[in-house]
Amino acid sequence: MQRRRYTHPPARNLLAMPVPPVIEWRDGAVRILDQRRLPDAVEVLHCTTVEQVNEAIRTLAIRGAPALGVAAAYAVALAATRVDAPDETTYLERLDHVIDQVIATRPTAVNLAWAAERLRTAAREQPENDIRAIRTSLLDLAHEIAADNEQRHRALAEAGADLFASGQRVLHHCNTGPLATAASYGTALGVLQAANQRHGIEVVVSETRPLLQGGRLTTWELAQWGVPFTLITDSMAADRMRRGHIDAVIVGADRIAANGDVANKIGTYSHAVAAGAHDLPFYVAAPLSTIDFDTPNGDAIPIEERATEEVHGYGDWRWSPSDAPVANPAFDVTPHQRITAIITEHGVHRPPYLESLRRFAAAPDAAA
Amino acid sequence: MQRRRYTHPPARNLLAMPVPPVIEWRDGAVRILDQRRLPDAVEVLHCTTVEQVNEAIRTLAIRGAPALGVAAAYAVALAATRVDAPDETTYLERLDHVIDQVIATRPTAVNLAWAAERLRTAAREQPENDIRAIRTSLLDLAHEIAADNEQRHRALAEAGADLFASGQRVLHHCNTGPLATAASYGTALGVLQAANQRHGIEVVVSETRPLLQGGRLTTWELAQWGVPFTLITDSMAADRMRRGHIDAVIVGADRIAANGDVANKIGTYSHAVAAGAHDLPFYVAAPLSTIDFDTPNGDAIPIEERATEEVHGYGDWRWSPSDAPVANPAFDVTPHQRITAIITEHGVHRPPYLESLRRFAAAPDAAA
Repeated sequence: MQRRRYTHPPARNLLAMPVPPVIEWRDGAVRILDQRRLPDAVEVLHCTTVEQVNEAIRTLAIRGAPALGVAAAYAVALAATRVDAPDETTYLERLDHVIDQVIATRPTAVNLAWAAERLRTAAREQPENDIRAIRTSLLDLAHEIAADNEQRHRALAEAGADLFASGQRVLHHCNTGPLATAASYGTALGVLQAANQRHGIEVVVSETRPLLQGGRLTTWELAQWGVPFTLITDSMAADRMRRGHIDAVIVGADRIAANGDVANKIGTYSHAVAAGAHDLPFYVAAPLSTIDFDTPNGDAIPIEERATEEVHGYGDWRWSPSDAPVANPAFDVTPHQRITAIITEHGVHRPPYLESLRRFAAAPDAAA
Repeated sequence: MQRRRYTHPPARNLLAMPVPPVIEWRDGAVRILDQRRLPDAVEVLHCTTVEQVNEAIRTLAIRGAPALGVAAAYAVALAATRVDAPDETTYLERLDHVIDQVIATRPTAVNLAWAAERLRTAAREQPENDIRAIRTSLLDLAHEIAADNEQRHRALAEAGADLFASGQRVLHHCNTGPLATAASYGTALGVLQAANQRHGIEVVVSETRPLLQGGRLTTWELAQWGVPFTLITDSMAADRMRRGHIDAVIVGADRIAANGDVANKIGTYSHAVAAGAHDLPFYVAAPLSTIDFDTPNGDAIPIEERATEEVHGYGDWRWSPSDAPVANPAFDVTPHQRITAIITEHGVHRPPYLESLRRFAAAPDAAA
């Protein structure tokens, strides 16, 4: 896999830099902006095999539930061009196997499986049942998913923008900006982008240990847009609420169960508990593809446990004893009772979520 | 100031190493174990001037409220040997000036001012009013404060040990072990040391961003003692409570107001809120010298705001844009309503704290 390094300036100079797309199909390959070293270095991974895309997903070179949906679509489309077979049946079997591998890269984000399964269905339903036709139709569908992703995030941002009033200070966790959605607007951060354009708001950025997506990526995106913000450690949020420096909380989601329970980046639940203790609204913003109507509640959502090294330090630096036992769940579950509203591209949904969300599960649009 | 490096092995090998005292008076100088680079490097600062001790305090080479009391006592005793003057009155004036500087190094920890003021009073009350006699008596008093500190922490650990039952998992924040107390027992961690010896317990260590005293120091101390523990990021605590993996919380204190409000390391309040939401007991362990009977409540406690770089990264590593605006209060305030009990060397105090603590304010022992 070819790594293309654009430059390596100190972080502050990056703010004015043109940034390559989060993911794009070009010249029969998938190009992925490597987010692991942002904002220190802007590098693009040039993936010519599905294994390279899977590795980029597993190691968080690309991350964020909606972006993972687009990545999965292009991963399968790429595999479709590479897999070969003597006949269509064998081809579809081999493609099935690859699709399973793509889905297995990260167990919590449902968008990934959602996109991969759409391509699986499309391959099987290809009327001509011809390998070349399948390849073309899967790439077309991946492009369609990417374009659709763009539109949905714009609609989502618009739908939530008026939840926040001028001058409000809104706590945001992890990264949910364009880097996480592979669109012009983020999810939770997209709502804040739109709210800032309309009313002028301020973002309180929690750094999001252990991988610091807030400290590295969200600060960087906000600085590029000129949205005022304050960076804090995750542990400062409750104190800032007590002192009246936070008016609301908004986060994204990696998977939403049918009852409205939300799996999201570890630390989300802590903010939800603190918001509840200080009578502040707690919003979740995610496209409909994040809702898993087959999962009844949060307890049924599989939670990815990641490597101990992430908690022992950051990057190559270890500050804890290297044999210190560690817990490192990548996500936590916030029960629906603690959520004020869920914002999707279809509007602002209030409890009871079983009713307000379920009506979309049946609509043809919900599977689109 | 001479830095004496003992060795620089990888962190894992340090567990079996003999560790120099946190602070000691030797050969007319103050030797301080440099905790900033623990557990990566064990270095001792050899301070021959009070400015060097002040710098060690300011930069957190020595930290922890009780240890700061001992450090302040030795700082003033060291200054007493160095300050010179033509007459006793001028000497006392100059010493007063130095004592003010010692107290100004860190505004939140009351133990520091408490110890320094004791030496100020002793200098003024020296019956012979002779510079040489003052020097001797101040050094004697500093040694006495150090010895007294040792005894109080042993008593405190014993007083709290039976609050925890066999097999309980207790969340602990920051570092409150011998490194923080300059005694054989810590405060909160001292209680856990004693509880583990009596019943066998398990510690859940929150890493304590931004300076990672939990991840660096508490893990290291627990590993040395063989106490079982799990290291987590601060943001994981609430989720672990929801899943039933934490049975209680215990923390130290940098200052306790007369009504029982507690200023402690940033992130403490977040754990208190989460404990409350999950009906778990929340304990504070601190020697009586931490209680500031002149401060009516938490709002009156000055909170130190530290450098932005601490939140931009760790050590020499910066992962956030270097001009990202930051909040970095070193401490937060937990209102007394959220505290189940306060453990001192005099036992376990329950609400209402205004009554249960105040009786010690009047006792001669309380000023000792």
